Amino acid sequence: MPDASLLEAFPTPADDPLVIEHVSEEFTSVCPKTGHPDFGEVSVHFQPRAAKDGGVCVELKSLKLYLHSFRNEGIFYEAVTHQIRDDLAALMNPTWMRITTNWRGRGGIRSVIRAEIGDAPRV
Amino acid sequence: MPDASLLEAFPTPADDPLVIEHVSEEFTSVCPKTGHPDFGEVSVHFQPRAAKDGGVCVELKSLKLYLHSFRNEGIFYEAVTHQIRDDLAALMNPTWMRITTNWRGRGGIRSVIRAEIGDAPRV
Amino acid sequence: MPDASLLEAFPTPADDPLVIEHVSEEFTSVCPKTGHPDFGEVSVHFQPRAAKDGGVCVELKSLKLYLHSFRNEGIFYEAVTHQIRDDLAALMNPTWMRITTNWRGRGGIRSVIRAEIGDAPRV
Amino acid sequence: MPDASLLEAFPTPADDPLVIEHVSEEFTSVCPKTGHPDFGEVSVHFQPRAAKDGGVCVELKSLKLYLHSFRNEGIFYEAVTHQIRDDLAALMNPTWMRITTNWRGRGGIRSVIRAEIGDAPRV
Amino acid sequence: MPDASLLEAFPTPADDPLVIEHVSEEFTSVCPKTGHPDFGEVSVHFQPRAAKDGGVCVELKSLKLYLHSFRNEGIFYEAVTHQIRDDLAALMNPTWMRITTNWRGRGGIRSVIRAEIGDAPRV
Amino acid sequence: MPDASLLEAFPTPADDPLVIEHVSEEFTSVCPKTGHPDFGEVSVHFQPRAAKDGGVCVELKSLKLYLHSFRNEGIFYEAVTHQIRDDLAALMNPTWMRITTNWRGRGGIRSVIRAEIGDAPRV
Amino acid sequence: MPDASLLEAFPTPADDPLVIEHVSEEFTSVCPKTGHPDFGEVSVHFQPRAAKDGGVCVELKSLKLYLHSFRNEGIFYEAVTHQIRDDLAALMNPTWMRITTNWRGRGGIRSVIRAEIGDAPRV
Amino acid sequence: MPDASLLEAFPTPADDPLVIEHVSEEFTSVCPKTGHPDFGEVSVHFQPRAAKDGGVCVELKSLKLYLHSFRNEGIFYEAVTHQIRDDLAALMNPTWMRITTNWRGRGGIRSVIRAEIGDAPRV
Amino acid sequence: MPDASLLEAFPTPADDPLVIEHVSEEFTSVCPKTGHPDFGEVSVHFQPRAAKDGGVCVELKSLKLYLHSFRNEGIFYEAVTHQIRDDLAALMNPTWMRITTNWRGRGGIRSVIRAEIGDAPRV
Amino acid sequence: MPDASLLEAFPTPADDPLVIEHVSEEFTSVCPKTGHPDFGEVSVHFQPRAAKDGGVCVELKSLKLYLHSFRNEGIFYEAVTHQIRDDLAALMNPTWMRITTNWRGRGGIRSVIRAEIGDAPRV
Repeated sequence: MPDASLLEAFPTPADDPLVIEHVSEEFTSVCPKTGHPDFGEVSVHFQPRAAKDGGVCVELKSLKLYLHSFRNEGIFYEAVTHQIRDDLAALMNPTWMRITTNWRGRGGIRSVIRAEIGDAPRV
Repeated sequence: MPDASLLEAFPTPADDPLVIEHVSEEFTSVCPKTGHPDFGEVSVHFQPRAAKDGGVCVELKSLKLYLHSFRNEGIFYEAVTHQIRDDLAALMNPTWMRITTNWRGRGGIRSVIRAEIGDAPRV
Repeated sequence: MPDASLLEAFPTPADDPLVIEHVSEEFTSVCPKTGHPDFGEVSVHFQPRAAKDGGVCVELKSLKLYLHSFRNEGIFYEAVTHQIRDDLAALMNPTWMRITTNWRGRGGIRSVIRAEIGDAPRV
Repeated sequence: MPDASLLEAFPTPADDPLVIEHVSEEFTSVCPKTGHPDFGEVSVHFQPRAAKDGGVCVELKSLKLYLHSFRNEGIFYEAVTHQIRDDLAALMNPTWMRITTNWRGRGGIRSVIRAEIGDAPRV
Repeated sequence: MPDASLLEAFPTPADDPLVIEHVSEEFTSVCPKTGHPDFGEVSVHFQPRAAKDGGVCVELKSLKLYLHSFRNEGIFYEAVTHQIRDDLAALMNPTWMRITTNWRGRGGIRSVIRAEIGDAPRV
Repeated sequence: MPDASLLEAFPTPADDPLVIEHVSEEFTSVCPKTGHPDFGEVSVHFQPRAAKDGGVCVELKSLKLYLHSFRNEGIFYEAVTHQIRDDLAALMNPTWMRITTNWRGRGGIRSVIRAEIGDAPRV
Repeated sequence: MPDASLLEAFPTPADDPLVIEHVSEEFTSVCPKTGHPDFGEVSVHFQPRAAKDGGVCVELKSLKLYLHSFRNEGIFYEAVTHQIRDDLAALMNPTWMRITTNWRGRGGIRSVIRAEIGDAPRV
Repeated sequence: MPDASLLEAFPTPADDPLVIEHVSEEFTSVCPKTGHPDFGEVSVHFQPRAAKDGGVCVELKSLKLYLHSFRNEGIFYEAVTHQIRDDLAALMNPTWMRITTNWRGRGGIRSVIRAEIGDAPRV
Repeated sequence: MPDASLLEAFPTPADDPLVIEHVSEEFTSVCPKTGHPDFGEVSVHFQPRAAKDGGVCVELKSLKLYLHSFRNEGIFYEAVTHQIRDDLAALMNPTWMRITTNWRGRGGIRSVIRAEIGDAPRV
Repeated sequence: MPDASLLEAFPTPADDPLVIEHVSEEFTSVCPKTGHPDFGEVSVHFQPRAAKDGGVCVELKSLKLYLHSFRNEGIFYEAVTHQIRDDLAALMNPTWMRITTNWRGRGGIRSVIRAEIGDAPRV
């Protein structure tokens, strides 16, 4: 089941504005209603706080293991999106973060869910 | 014929801003003038009201069945677009919603129709 | 329901070898098991008999109407493919014909079915 | 020659904002200088006036026939763009309209011409 | 774990040659060495025996469930490919079958594995 | 109307095997049944006779003007294909030639017609 | 060498706002440092002054010949971009113009240079 | 190791606004944690100071050699991005600059890092 | 430098014909003439000997490390291709193997080199 | 003008069969009829003679300079193709060689010319 304790962070390497995007094209969880697997892509887009403000960034391998922990979880699209946002916000407290989940679809309908915190950077 | 009673909703899972897009690539209805089938893609893009405000989201399978109910309806492009908007607005009363229908075209002309309610979210 | 009487033919316009392909990207029928619509692409690829041998070719608009007649038929992928092949073979008795149905898929699996009569032309 | 009398309109089906785009990928006219054919794509993008304001929308088949009437006209790219804009503005008096002609090019240069009236809608 | 008992078959609908391809774009299993998930696409391409010879075809939904049964199995690429081939051959005893597994890759190397039985049909 | 007298040829520049393909992406003629314009792509693929055998090749600009001469001709797909083949065969008497016409389609069906003379070269 | 005297203009055909883009995909000049040829794409994007203000537009064929005049000129990317902007500005004195040169690259680095005058139109 | 002394500059060729983008699709460095190579694309997007203000632009070949100097450096994604930004800012002191590094990914996650100085130009 | 001792093998998992392809999209070596880095894609396509004949297959991670060992080697395209073929042939003694190296190119020319041993399998 | 003396060769690095393809995407010459530049892509595909038979391969940089020597030559498509074939055949005397020139087209017609010597290799 989703395990936020897998997440690790490292200090932001600079005080200047930095925007980071990590995209996992191989996300899978399970539909809680039908028990069938869901497949999608998860994007984590954020602006960490600066080094001088104690800012941290999520470590890449720990993010991978965290995303794998949803593999056998029965969970809806919207809940996946919210949980990733909340777990990463708790870890990093970033200036801005947007989570986008893009699902391959079932029964001819594909879906995109987006959740956000803070103000998107200018660029 | 189009049947809004097929639509079901579930409570928005959170109070934070959320943007959702459902895309059905397999929509078909019938041209009321010629009786020939029309084929297109229907996108439903919306921001539900928050949980604390009693907000709800359209349930995915019910949306699929609702879209199937247009299959043998003689109805123009613009009317399809308006009806989907009105039926989903009645169901969800969302903060913002945009319906886009993208038709494969006939006689060398393809068309896109877009109807909207509310103010599009910042991002 | 599928109606072969909609099909019309015209005499092959020449005695030289000719290869013709018609592709309908907007085919739909209904799954007999679930009642859900199926969407796909149907290709008719054939070599008509020569004019001097009384050869005929399927007329394009009649082919369109014939394919539309499957719209509300509950019929499996394989049966669609066989029936189109048999109906067109009865109409044209071509030297060679290949029917390919390419289905958009359901539940994450997409399918292609191919049925053929006669020997494919050299090129 | 271009014949605006071919254009027909129907009343806008609603009072809510609606944005419509029709794209003809098969436009052809003749270069008045060389007599060679020009080929291109014509997009008509507009926001009709609302039903309550007596708004109308161009009818799709009449638009097709109107565009065909340029087939043997010797006319420059810019003049094609202006004439379509003026003829459709006279027919519909829309809130906003943009005509874009996208030409396949000759001698290694391809061109896009855009003419507009009114203020583009927010989205 | 992989469960061939999930597979079901139905009689080949005709005596004529038929070629069928099912493609699942959402296959996942687990690397037995690292425990990390593997993602890929599985194609099943076959020519069933004719109806008069008692031929059968794999049923689509049962194929989907069978492929899902590899989800948490620790198994190498080559073994996945062989097992699917052997299980489907036992079910259908087809004239010809080719299994292709196409893996998204790890560490910058992506792989394709192909196993086959019988002689590929002419076309 | 189609005018083969527009075609010009020049001597094949060598005795060695040469394969030439000319593709016109901007072909248009008129449907004799409906009067509506047809749009498509015409490919001329051939192996000219060698210089020592008095071989000739079609001159490119004359081919363009010849193809333009179909612009207002009411003529079926198959007849366009045959006439281009016959006119170019009369001009060049090539070792091999294949004419392919690829039509953008009407009413959701697109078509490809192929006519050929001689034996296709090895490569 | 670049020859602005090749450029010709014609009066803007209307008083309404018009935006024009000409793209030459086949530009070549020579690197002044190495003597090797450079290849790229040149886009000229502009809004001419209105007819009533004596506005003019560059004539397409003269633009082609002007661009060809850089063929054997040893000139850097930035200088090509500036010179085209300055020569066309002198010819047309447009409301707005943007020149974009997009170079295929050498040694694994590709470059885009953009120079502009005036304020970009709203759309 | 990264060597900023390889970078050379030349005076901005004009006083007018100019925007330049150099993209190297063949960047490689080494992961300091695993010792495995990282592969990506580096974009340098900037607006140099004007000639009259003593502005300079990075010379293309020197940029290539500078980027090659990271080849065997053990360095994280974020540090690569910052160092290129700092070294080029020290060289050019541009009005605006944005460095984007786009990494091919490992373990199914690909990343994009962006660092910037100054205000992005209007266009 | 290229180090064949890094390569490891495992027994072919079956006696049936199997065809395997591994593609590394991130290969780099150094041009021995200029010292500049070369970038390309390396494909290893082979049919291993059967289990009963003592056949073995190259292990994926060892292949990755082996390919990395060319990183700082000054070696021509053709020699890279031959060495990979010879090292893998020595390891596996396969029924058939084809090595294809596809180089991104320098100075506007890109190259593909292919070396092979044994007879390609039927499919 | 085309200068075969620019071409250099190096000994084939092995006795095993090797197939090599060099593709120059940036070829330009001049139309001898109109004086306008022609742009295209030139592919050289060949199998060199083995080292033990004194075989040689064309050196890549010399090939680039040789292709540049056509830059200001007035020469037809077919003649370009033949001359490259003859000059490279004289240099290398390969087992097999195919020259393909693919021209961007003028007046809406694009062309491909292919000349060959020897027997194409099995793969």
